[in-house]
Amino acid sequence: MRPVIQFQPRPGILDLGWGHPRPELLPVETWARAATRAARHFGGQALTYGYATGPAPLLEWLSAHLNRLEGGGTAPEQTFVTGGASHGLALVTQVLAAPGDTVLVDSPTYHLAFRILADRGVSVAAAPEGLDPASLTTRLRTLRASGHRVPMLYLVPTFGNPTGLSLPDARRAELISVARAESLTIVEDDTYRELCYDGTAPASLWRLAGGAPVVRLGSFAKTVAPGLRLGWINADPAVIGALAALGYVDSGGGVNHSVAMQMAAFGDAGWYDDHLAFVRGQYRAQRDALAGALGVSAPAGGWFLWLPMPAGLLPAAEARGVSFVPGTRFYADGTSGTTRVRLSFSHLSPADLRRAAERLTAAVRP
Amino acid sequence: MRPVIQFQPRPGILDLGWGHPRPELLPVETWARAATRAARHFGGQALTYGYATGPAPLLEWLSAHLNRLEGGGTAPEQTFVTGGASHGLALVTQVLAAPGDTVLVDSPTYHLAFRILADRGVSVAAAPEGLDPASLTTRLRTLRASGHRVPMLYLVPTFGNPTGLSLPDARRAELISVARAESLTIVEDDTYRELCYDGTAPASLWRLAGGAPVVRLGSFAKTVAPGLRLGWINADPAVIGALAALGYVDSGGGVNHSVAMQMAAFGDAGWYDDHLAFVRGQYRAQRDALAGALGVSAPAGGWFLWLPMPAGLLPAAEARGVSFVPGTRFYADGTSGTTRVRLSFSHLSPADLRRAAERLTAAVRP
Repeated sequence: MRPVIQFQPRPGILDLGWGHPRPELLPVETWARAATRAARHFGGQALTYGYATGPAPLLEWLSAHLNRLEGGGTAPEQTFVTGGASHGLALVTQVLAAPGDTVLVDSPTYHLAFRILADRGVSVAAAPEGLDPASLTTRLRTLRASGHRVPMLYLVPTFGNPTGLSLPDARRAELISVARAESLTIVEDDTYRELCYDGTAPASLWRLAGGAPVVRLGSFAKTVAPGLRLGWINADPAVIGALAALGYVDSGGGVNHSVAMQMAAFGDAGWYDDHLAFVRGQYRAQRDALAGALGVSAPAGGWFLWLPMPAGLLPAAEARGVSFVPGTRFYADGTSGTTRVRLSFSHLSPADLRRAAERLTAAVRP
Repeated sequence: MRPVIQFQPRPGILDLGWGHPRPELLPVETWARAATRAARHFGGQALTYGYATGPAPLLEWLSAHLNRLEGGGTAPEQTFVTGGASHGLALVTQVLAAPGDTVLVDSPTYHLAFRILADRGVSVAAAPEGLDPASLTTRLRTLRASGHRVPMLYLVPTFGNPTGLSLPDARRAELISVARAESLTIVEDDTYRELCYDGTAPASLWRLAGGAPVVRLGSFAKTVAPGLRLGWINADPAVIGALAALGYVDSGGGVNHSVAMQMAAFGDAGWYDDHLAFVRGQYRAQRDALAGALGVSAPAGGWFLWLPMPAGLLPAAEARGVSFVPGTRFYADGTSGTTRVRLSFSHLSPADLRRAAERLTAAVRP
């Protein structure tokens, strides 16, 4: 059997390694209705070559939605539709960095970002853990003094991958000040903002800075469905213009036009808000099931727990029928994080998460 | 008004410059049915992270379809799903070429390919017009002798853009021999193969070579709808593996999973074959309307006429209410082709094409 999807089950293993949505939460019927609605509302305009930055109906619904969420700060002209946040990172790196450059990344951070950056031919350097402004400035100046061009810093500051935690508000302001003073672009991966379970999410770097020097990556992968391959970049119009001028974006008429038009129909009908409320409740219950069973504190949003665990636990855990991603994967050096693990609560039901927690606890204290 | 689509009408101008489908021919209702069918058949598997090379239902339907069309030659394992042919060219260039390399391109050829290649940081060099094997070998060896790495040659050999013409069969075999002898990869943009109006299309380079040294780019943009941003690459498994290993492809779970699953449903239902038969008849009529009104011979397939015209005709043509793309745009040097123009018959109705032909004739002989 050839594979259909990325997830491959392993017999007997409850796998907390996958940052994937729980299949039952995907909006299968509603998305088919959105396709019908897009056909009725937009006709052939939903299927021909689209406008390079994204079609007006999506740019307008999305910026209004973000402005309701954040109290303003995003115009359609500051928005470019992508094939998801990871595609957004690839595109932003293509226009902001050149092969041979060095890109700073948060420590720890989303592990596949390292490969996306490497594909552009840039070197990846870890920013000081915690992003203390003085240490960050020193790291940046040291790299530059030794001849490295360092155009950007990548991080997931809100309900982050892998930690589930958020950069404190005061640190956000300091980070923007450093970026301004040092001519560094901050690439803010804001994928998890809307998966907030207690209260509200911290203000985005994008909103706090009022645009540059921040570029924000957004995605519909976690709020609606990853298979849609739809997300966006918020950036100042010069960056948006550079993205729209890429040859394959111009040639293709935008990146994912028909899905963008379907999302505009889905959003305009109110189905986005309904679905988000539904998945928030479900993921909150999943989070509570896993964090409760493990007796750890629950992150306020996102999909992950980031926990201290004995180094080298994975084989013993898998022998008990549970798996996870080892912490080392999330550090650019590949060696830090030996006593940390990332547990995802996005993919399994509360009952399975409780069973997984029992197995993990048994592996830690056999 | 913010733009929704790439096409922007110009008052009073019948524009033969746009290589876009005629809006009335887009399968608006059938595509909405395909979305519903994909939801019913595949459920959540249509919406989650997909398999990196593309989902089995599409790879299997597509390779069976290509094998019916070509009498064999394409396996699912030789296929990678892309966001269209131009995205395919960007991806192939990323894995086959490095910044600083030189890429050979046919003369004339698809003009936006120049920008897609330039975005990878490679230089573009024109292959000898007509691709005579001795001249091509000399050009290649001269470039390499002067220190250029030349990994690939790009061309649109079948019902090509801009010419509408096809590379003769004998020249195809010679080209493959040169590529084998000189370790050159041929990137065959095969976008127009199925838009064939008289008899059958010439055998593809991919089929003739039996795989390497050819990489083929295919697309659903012309046969179904460009807004879907869906196409494919045929290549040997080593190239497919390199594509699947790209960070953003792995992170995203394939390039355009949900649309790929919808296309699998569309193909499996027989709607692809029905729609192709329909658009073939329509584009044949459009071709006949334009070629007949201009009194020129009709190309056997594709979307374009490539005609000799007086140099500098565009302003006089636009003053008469007709436009086109000047021939110089399709040459890497930007200066050849002054007495050629590309006329697209894809976008306008037969009646409008006849009117456009009248205006063009009047501009040539005022």
